[in-house]
Amino acid sequence: MQQSFRSFTSVADVPDVAQLLQEAHEIKKQPLLHAALGKHKTLGLLFFNASLRTRISTQKAAHNLGMNVVVINVGTESWKLEFDDGAVMDGDTVEHIKEGAAVLGQYCDILAVRAFAGLQNREEDYSEPVLNSLMRYAGVPILSLESATRHPLQSFADLITIQELTASKATTTRPKVVLTWAPHPRALPQAVPNSFAEWMRRADVDLVITHPKGFELSEEFTHDVPILYDQDAALEGADIVYPKNWSPYAHNYGAALGSAWREYAAWTVNAQKLARTNNAKVLHCLPTRRNVEIADDVLDSTASAVIQEAANRVYAAQTVLKRMIESLS
Amino acid sequence: MQQSFRSFTSVADVPDVAQLLQEAHEIKKQPLLHAALGKHKTLGLLFFNASLRTRISTQKAAHNLGMNVVVINVGTESWKLEFDDGAVMDGDTVEHIKEGAAVLGQYCDILAVRAFAGLQNREEDYSEPVLNSLMRYAGVPILSLESATRHPLQSFADLITIQELTASKATTTRPKVVLTWAPHPRALPQAVPNSFAEWMRRADVDLVITHPKGFELSEEFTHDVPILYDQDAALEGADIVYPKNWSPYAHNYGAALGSAWREYAAWTVNAQKLARTNNAKVLHCLPTRRNVEIADDVLDSTASAVIQEAANRVYAAQTVLKRMIESLS
Amino acid sequence: MQQSFRSFTSVADVPDVAQLLQEAHEIKKQPLLHAALGKHKTLGLLFFNASLRTRISTQKAAHNLGMNVVVINVGTESWKLEFDDGAVMDGDTVEHIKEGAAVLGQYCDILAVRAFAGLQNREEDYSEPVLNSLMRYAGVPILSLESATRHPLQSFADLITIQELTASKATTTRPKVVLTWAPHPRALPQAVPNSFAEWMRRADVDLVITHPKGFELSEEFTHDVPILYDQDAALEGADIVYPKNWSPYAHNYGAALGSAWREYAAWTVNAQKLARTNNAKVLHCLPTRRNVEIADDVLDSTASAVIQEAANRVYAAQTVLKRMIESLS
Repeated sequence: MQQSFRSFTSVADVPDVAQLLQEAHEIKKQPLLHAALGKHKTLGLLFFNASLRTRISTQKAAHNLGMNVVVINVGTESWKLEFDDGAVMDGDTVEHIKEGAAVLGQYCDILAVRAFAGLQNREEDYSEPVLNSLMRYAGVPILSLESATRHPLQSFADLITIQELTASKATTTRPKVVLTWAPHPRALPQAVPNSFAEWMRRADVDLVITHPKGFELSEEFTHDVPILYDQDAALEGADIVYPKNWSPYAHNYGAALGSAWREYAAWTVNAQKLARTNNAKVLHCLPTRRNVEIADDVLDSTASAVIQEAANRVYAAQTVLKRMIESLS
Repeated sequence: MQQSFRSFTSVADVPDVAQLLQEAHEIKKQPLLHAALGKHKTLGLLFFNASLRTRISTQKAAHNLGMNVVVINVGTESWKLEFDDGAVMDGDTVEHIKEGAAVLGQYCDILAVRAFAGLQNREEDYSEPVLNSLMRYAGVPILSLESATRHPLQSFADLITIQELTASKATTTRPKVVLTWAPHPRALPQAVPNSFAEWMRRADVDLVITHPKGFELSEEFTHDVPILYDQDAALEGADIVYPKNWSPYAHNYGAALGSAWREYAAWTVNAQKLARTNNAKVLHCLPTRRNVEIADDVLDSTASAVIQEAANRVYAAQTVLKRMIESLS
Repeated sequence: MQQSFRSFTSVADVPDVAQLLQEAHEIKKQPLLHAALGKHKTLGLLFFNASLRTRISTQKAAHNLGMNVVVINVGTESWKLEFDDGAVMDGDTVEHIKEGAAVLGQYCDILAVRAFAGLQNREEDYSEPVLNSLMRYAGVPILSLESATRHPLQSFADLITIQELTASKATTTRPKVVLTWAPHPRALPQAVPNSFAEWMRRADVDLVITHPKGFELSEEFTHDVPILYDQDAALEGADIVYPKNWSPYAHNYGAALGSAWREYAAWTVNAQKLARTNNAKVLHCLPTRRNVEIADDVLDSTASAVIQEAANRVYAAQTVLKRMIESLS
């Protein structure tokens, strides 16, 4: 019997990752096999932040299942939301999430939401105010399209891609997957690396994380994953390399590097670095800053699998939506 | 034979309110009974202002009828419109409503529009420049999603909800419905209370309006409805309480209270005030300012029916769209 | 056998204009004849600029063919794109078009894009950076919704309309079509007149262009089309008049007239000027500045065919999309 789940916000919502992956590969082979499953079901996509891949791949996944989709850009199309319990709302927030979420739950069978970390206040970000308010008040299953601390659909698509890329390698050992910090002028959330770490720990891979001192992620996500400060050593023999910037978690939470990113230019992943690997394929959630995070000589080479990875976002979303629809009845 | 109508912009467009209500209750029981009625019909949703409930409930209503929906956010996605007849358009308006409306009428079978009052010029607002221009030039039925002076789909949903809430009360008398002004820091239009007054006057309820002196609505909408300046007296024995802010109409048109809203803090509807009522249920069109218009101890209690009311927006819109589609052929 | 094509960005993509026109007229008669052709195909609409007609007519065309549509407003909903090859992306661009286009190509069967000329740098504009990047990297057919130098769907709709308008004239000669420059306070691209010229040159009409000295278009588009500096002479005996502003191409590229447009007020097309014509019908791509480009006494008269022309945008888009879908299989 297939597992089903109501909400999908972290790998903890998935009882059996291997089974979910198997289903994703099957859906990729026949994406229109369940084209009537979601008929007359409404998926609401709630964007607090910009989105390209997520916006379109999730719509496509829903269409493949026959669902209706409504998109809400919260900032430009709707009302500024209040999240504080007991607030006297005489400032610039117009609607409390208690009403906003409950109303959306009346119109949508499943609510999907993107709400990035603000990177001003670590405790607030890691309490997931938007996601948890929706979970609490909407009354319908919630699908995370990247929250303050996690990006589970991305990690699921990453894992689908890693399986595809390593299946063809004639090897009896688990693939070595290296998540490497890479420079970036702006402050980015830790959501992608956090999720990547917790998904890879549930998968049949050997994960290594490498980053400069000071960029440690929360141990809640990394647990016992080996962490190296020497990128070259980490890349040795890698099958998969995942370069990704994130801003500091432990100290100077969310600080941007600005032009000081150049002090970390040695961390940019380029072809020369890949020479140390086991003919590794390179993944990235995208968007990526060319020649800052990853060099042209990687992205424009056959080592890059970022487009295949992006394509798999459809099947990750579709697999999860299929399970959520099944859990509705 | 069922009544049909071409446009829906006020209760005056409805020959028989009781019949429309009856149909809404039936549609709520079987929302997918007419899932093919709107096939290959296009509904255009034109937003000059922010929207959450209206945006999504109207899309859902259209989907339930099998319609295609196109959404246009006029400010951010399209061209700034000119409304003045004879204008020499060498300023910042790019397209005259004469062309804009006529073109939209070529693409859409029904046009729905939200255009709030500007609150700068009463005569202009009450002449409904946007709505009336569309009515005049689009050549297709117009559905109001809140205009400068009315919000008919909201009032229709309010009435559906009032019937649901009072049907279970074993009473032979008409329900007492109290529309009470409530404070708010910003200037809000009179559209919701105007519409509420004219719809309740057509319904089988006893309406009372209460507000501080100086917040009189236009008599065009209130007519002979009893108006009390004493909120406590008005609430006595109420079955339904509808707290809602509006800015002044007669003098200081559209003036904002700002921080002076606190001088009216006694008008905030809270649990203590509800003690005077006949176990009243509380409605609000939403969004509402918590602890300014309505206190947490009401919104978080079983007295609140605002979510049920929001849910009924789908069935109000669907009933009206069904009639409009029927009038097309 | 019907011609099919992969991309549609200029008239050069059309092997046989007469055949395409014939098909458009047939589709207009029965717009739902191919309502299943595009089932499970996804059209992505990518807007770098504002749009009303194009936004809605293209969606409607896609719906008439049974396609799914996803809309992306690049500026407000997605990431700022980088177009320079080899850029070190440490500034404000977040995603390179190489990835952006390739990813969109994974999700969409056909990509439609609107990207106006920036009017700052002629060489850059005329190299079509956005359109050509998409053509190069997306890997799927590209449909132009107006690029820096051309607006082919508009010109195709213009031609459909011209055929409709002149078919009823009992004449054995080719219709005389006059494209006349008209004043405007802002700087507009040359895309519409460029396209109009190259499409009319492929059609069974006699095209004349008239404009003040200094507003010459690129000869790449006008070739041997007669160009007159005397508007009155040009209008003599015209069957179709197409007033349209464009900013200078050869010198002062993209300069705005501002209030100096009034020095050209004699170029505004009004009823008096039309008296010289052969009872001409007036077209415009819209939006148009009333009483600057075209006077009220034309737009409000039976001489105006701009709404019919706008309606034909649906059938132009639908004919092209139909061909593109056919070319997919």
